[in-house]
Amino acid sequence: MFNFYSFKNDYGEGAHPKLLEALAKASCEQNIAYGNDVHSEHARNLIRERIGCPDADIHFLEGGTQTNLIAISAFLRPHEAAIAAETGHINTHETGAVEATGHKILTCTAQDGKLTAHDVERIVALHPDEHVVKPKLVYISDSTEIGTIYSKSELSDLHRVCKQYDLYLYLDGARLGSALTSSENDLTMQKIAEWTDAFYIGGTKNGALLGEALVIRNPALKDGFRYILKQKGAMLAKGMVLGAQFERFFEDDLYFELAAHANKMALRLYQAIKDAGFHFLSPSSTNQIFPVLPNQLVEQLSEHYAFEIWDRPTEGETAIRLVTSWATPEDAVGCFIDDFNRLTH
Amino acid sequence: MFNFYSFKNDYGEGAHPKLLEALAKASCEQNIAYGNDVHSEHARNLIRERIGCPDADIHFLEGGTQTNLIAISAFLRPHEAAIAAETGHINTHETGAVEATGHKILTCTAQDGKLTAHDVERIVALHPDEHVVKPKLVYISDSTEIGTIYSKSELSDLHRVCKQYDLYLYLDGARLGSALTSSENDLTMQKIAEWTDAFYIGGTKNGALLGEALVIRNPALKDGFRYILKQKGAMLAKGMVLGAQFERFFEDDLYFELAAHANKMALRLYQAIKDAGFHFLSPSSTNQIFPVLPNQLVEQLSEHYAFEIWDRPTEGETAIRLVTSWATPEDAVGCFIDDFNRLTH
Amino acid sequence: MFNFYSFKNDYGEGAHPKLLEALAKASCEQNIAYGNDVHSEHARNLIRERIGCPDADIHFLEGGTQTNLIAISAFLRPHEAAIAAETGHINTHETGAVEATGHKILTCTAQDGKLTAHDVERIVALHPDEHVVKPKLVYISDSTEIGTIYSKSELSDLHRVCKQYDLYLYLDGARLGSALTSSENDLTMQKIAEWTDAFYIGGTKNGALLGEALVIRNPALKDGFRYILKQKGAMLAKGMVLGAQFERFFEDDLYFELAAHANKMALRLYQAIKDAGFHFLSPSSTNQIFPVLPNQLVEQLSEHYAFEIWDRPTEGETAIRLVTSWATPEDAVGCFIDDFNRLTH
Amino acid sequence: MFNFYSFKNDYGEGAHPKLLEALAKASCEQNIAYGNDVHSEHARNLIRERIGCPDADIHFLEGGTQTNLIAISAFLRPHEAAIAAETGHINTHETGAVEATGHKILTCTAQDGKLTAHDVERIVALHPDEHVVKPKLVYISDSTEIGTIYSKSELSDLHRVCKQYDLYLYLDGARLGSALTSSENDLTMQKIAEWTDAFYIGGTKNGALLGEALVIRNPALKDGFRYILKQKGAMLAKGMVLGAQFERFFEDDLYFELAAHANKMALRLYQAIKDAGFHFLSPSSTNQIFPVLPNQLVEQLSEHYAFEIWDRPTEGETAIRLVTSWATPEDAVGCFIDDFNRLTH
Repeated sequence: MFNFYSFKNDYGEGAHPKLLEALAKASCEQNIAYGNDVHSEHARNLIRERIGCPDADIHFLEGGTQTNLIAISAFLRPHEAAIAAETGHINTHETGAVEATGHKILTCTAQDGKLTAHDVERIVALHPDEHVVKPKLVYISDSTEIGTIYSKSELSDLHRVCKQYDLYLYLDGARLGSALTSSENDLTMQKIAEWTDAFYIGGTKNGALLGEALVIRNPALKDGFRYILKQKGAMLAKGMVLGAQFERFFEDDLYFELAAHANKMALRLYQAIKDAGFHFLSPSSTNQIFPVLPNQLVEQLSEHYAFEIWDRPTEGETAIRLVTSWATPEDAVGCFIDDFNRLTH
Repeated sequence: MFNFYSFKNDYGEGAHPKLLEALAKASCEQNIAYGNDVHSEHARNLIRERIGCPDADIHFLEGGTQTNLIAISAFLRPHEAAIAAETGHINTHETGAVEATGHKILTCTAQDGKLTAHDVERIVALHPDEHVVKPKLVYISDSTEIGTIYSKSELSDLHRVCKQYDLYLYLDGARLGSALTSSENDLTMQKIAEWTDAFYIGGTKNGALLGEALVIRNPALKDGFRYILKQKGAMLAKGMVLGAQFERFFEDDLYFELAAHANKMALRLYQAIKDAGFHFLSPSSTNQIFPVLPNQLVEQLSEHYAFEIWDRPTEGETAIRLVTSWATPEDAVGCFIDDFNRLTH
Repeated sequence: MFNFYSFKNDYGEGAHPKLLEALAKASCEQNIAYGNDVHSEHARNLIRERIGCPDADIHFLEGGTQTNLIAISAFLRPHEAAIAAETGHINTHETGAVEATGHKILTCTAQDGKLTAHDVERIVALHPDEHVVKPKLVYISDSTEIGTIYSKSELSDLHRVCKQYDLYLYLDGARLGSALTSSENDLTMQKIAEWTDAFYIGGTKNGALLGEALVIRNPALKDGFRYILKQKGAMLAKGMVLGAQFERFFEDDLYFELAAHANKMALRLYQAIKDAGFHFLSPSSTNQIFPVLPNQLVEQLSEHYAFEIWDRPTEGETAIRLVTSWATPEDAVGCFIDDFNRLTH
Repeated sequence: MFNFYSFKNDYGEGAHPKLLEALAKASCEQNIAYGNDVHSEHARNLIRERIGCPDADIHFLEGGTQTNLIAISAFLRPHEAAIAAETGHINTHETGAVEATGHKILTCTAQDGKLTAHDVERIVALHPDEHVVKPKLVYISDSTEIGTIYSKSELSDLHRVCKQYDLYLYLDGARLGSALTSSENDLTMQKIAEWTDAFYIGGTKNGALLGEALVIRNPALKDGFRYILKQKGAMLAKGMVLGAQFERFFEDDLYFELAAHANKMALRLYQAIKDAGFHFLSPSSTNQIFPVLPNQLVEQLSEHYAFEIWDRPTEGETAIRLVTSWATPEDAVGCFIDDFNRLTH
């Protein structure tokens, strides 16, 4: 049925039809510019309700790298640094965007892509005076870059250690929908809002044309943020384009439905590959999975499916990344599983 | 017919239906990410053909401030500065975005918002050594921030002086469509490509949801640009969103038709106001006009029309900015003129 | 007696012998590094006493441009800007150092090189929202770049307007000694400390090998400053080099004696030139004077004296800058006056 | 004889008397400002002769962190990164100075503090496209932060790999004198000049009050450097202060004599500690040694000697850093050895 299907990422397709419809409708109106339109305002209120923070500041930005670099550079003074897992997106795949704003990233190797309270304490202890940068912000992503998620107790621990050392806790939610709808998740958006100083709700990877919703809960981080949005080129003249999409996301449960679908598709792939006796690089329960497969099988699969080559753990094996999305058809997953079973039996 | 209509700016409405249609279509496909999709490639080729530069590098960005700050910071070394008219957008309405990338803007007062070759020479002469910044890039906008346009001979002079002093000439085309379809224009997109080192073709203010097409013609400025796009948070994962819109703009003459409509609407307003005996702050022939009106008239108009208050040239007079766009209905202009005539007779 | 003497600037000679002696003595000791040595501590206390601020933070830096760029970038958030006179050193002769840290400088033309409270108010009014930078720091220099000084009432007005608009007042004291020992001065170092948020006491131009003492009085500006010193490359390993010189400056009245000598020398030149019927570009009462002289006279003087050509106010006239210093011998001034009188009579 | 002596660092004392004498002499003259004085010119020529590069550009700066941050930020475009050993000074003890100029540092663990050609190749291979920074400069220090030195063949390998991948090779010579006069050294200053694109000759840690001489050999890196010096606050008005010291350093072999003395003192300490049966963290042959000693011994030594606590390799042991300098008296070393032997026998 599918001659070729890509599991390369979750941003190949455009926007979900319901978002496009909302956009087309808002497009006919004369909206106020720069994010002060009724759709953006409504979207902000819907998110505030959902996270239980009537006072949160919410800004809509265009993409993940942009959101991370603007948030971090707005929150930190020149000598302050971010702490991140070595695998953290800001450290690995943002072309030095955070450093380009002047801030060092302090990294540590992290089990399953997750930073622990202990990691944070250790890094703080190594930075006691003005001859080294001052750690001030802890960056985590949920789900992580390798598909894992933070548990309630892990996030609580990080929250506690951040309070103890006067650090901001910032959560990159490029795939927050996927994390929150994972079968293993015990966190809620409310808890995340409560335990972080700021976080963002990813739209691009969950069915929007573009757009991320940055939530700033800590009052100390709110001041002047719109200036910085503008200065960094992130304040869209037609802010409605972002607002209308997030309004539609949260008018009902669309945001979570789309993420749940992506997870469901990934779980089917995961189960089939596991059943065939293969293992995975990380214990992912979200929409990115990393099976370790024989090189030849990878080659055969690549004739009909696209995916990222992630690692070469041994000479004969290749770890690949399979990503599903809100748009992944059941049939594409079915085809892959059939082909996979055929090739491995 | 219109109880209230806004002439506040040209980015109140969203996108032209033809662009939305193109987006919706591309949205169903699995596109390659980060601007390497077929729509972006096709759009680049259509633009290359139209400007007669098969070798130009073309990048799609999200907005004008973003395009200006990224282009200028990518082109300049740390000690190099931009020259701009005091009214230049980078100097007045971008929240210090260029300075935030580390570069000083050297300004001079400019007749009708336009920089002359002589202005450039004078500023270069004032910056002879390492105790002051080194002027290296000339920033102009066409149409300008006050609606005027550069003539062929003015641009040719700037081109010549930039060659003479080894300066880059960069043209901000946020409203390039409006400039090129002005009744007084004698420039072409080809000439602009030939005489500048880089320029951008504005989409946001001409009917796109968002998007500007940066054209880099000077080979010395091309290297590494995609790195910088990514580093500054401007590389959309779904680059197709920009590419599909520009593809549609230039598949036929849509880009110019939309701009011509905006100009036509502005000209009708201009003529009616002029016929009623009022004068204007600048000799605009594009989609922004700046009539100087009695304060009371401004107040009366503001009951049914929105517009920017631009200046108070005398105690009894207010200069306002009226902006038309691709979306301005003939009827809205008709209503305004009727109301205007009624109020002034 | 002098075949050739330079009035080009006040940093041609090295350090006053008493400072060199103090340095040589401290040089033999094993001092604590990075400015925590006993000489730096003692110098800080001597300055605190003199300005009547026991709580002031005091840091020693290497030069004026460095001090300005570090102070301003440490004090401001990314979207905040400095206000300065068009002739302000940060705007004219620091190679865009402040912009290179990301901050725009908002300038206005200023009578006699001095910013007024009214100038500040006008600039603040022009910057109301996030589409433009936020004015946050007022930069002044005393004495100014053209030799003039602020009066008590002028500084008091600036202080008041800064409080009113929540702006920091920062004073560049590269030539503070010269300002405070001017015959027309009615300010004290205490008043300056009281009315500014931070200022610096210039050493380089007043007889030190190098060194400026930055005084931070506003507690909100103190935090993390040593981190930023280090990060910008301004924290000398042998901080004693700066501390020992400032210790010597303020152990007695040496700092003021050296400045008073420079002023006295300038006044003699000023009087002689004025007596010969010439006028000056600015009403300087400090160690820089700007006589306007016939071109031929300037040429004749240049055979035996060096000075800067400052301006060409008319076709036949040249404004030159004559600078005296702590090191200017009485005889050099005498020779100049003799030659001047001979040439003009 | 010494009740207390500090082996904490090599920048406790000021300047060698011969340098102070040179400074005092030059201090009486009227020198040209900003590093264009005769002493700086002469010093540059003496260095050019010594390294056999008549065309090298040479700039005098104030300190090591400043030199590193200015060189690296002047050499790199925004998206380019430096490669360094994890122990590299720019990574560990410069408060994020390089990142503060916008550039990421890519690190790897390094045997004995030294980067290998293989390390460089591995890091380059991990950075293939615009989603990650572009490695462009290799930073090494000689001697390293842990006292080791590069051999001729190691530097040659690095040179080759840098050519192969079009990377700049930059050598931090804060302790270059100590490296070149080490008993195990087989490199010369000429070879270093030949194989690097730029390097600096450290003055601060070898007997100057302050000052480092940056040598730029690669013509592509020379342009505009004085602008950047000024912009970053590193261009001393009295550049003579640096020039006169380096002139004195290289008028004869003073630079090397001072370094040789420091090494000789360290070697005596090293030998005595080794003879007593202890081992070291690194195979240092320069003026910093890192013995691993029983905790109690460290405590006893600290009553009469100052030194840095470097590490706690085991529960019962402490690694300390002992640093000697041009100023370390033979007697201080003798006392230490006597005390050491007494405490350990």
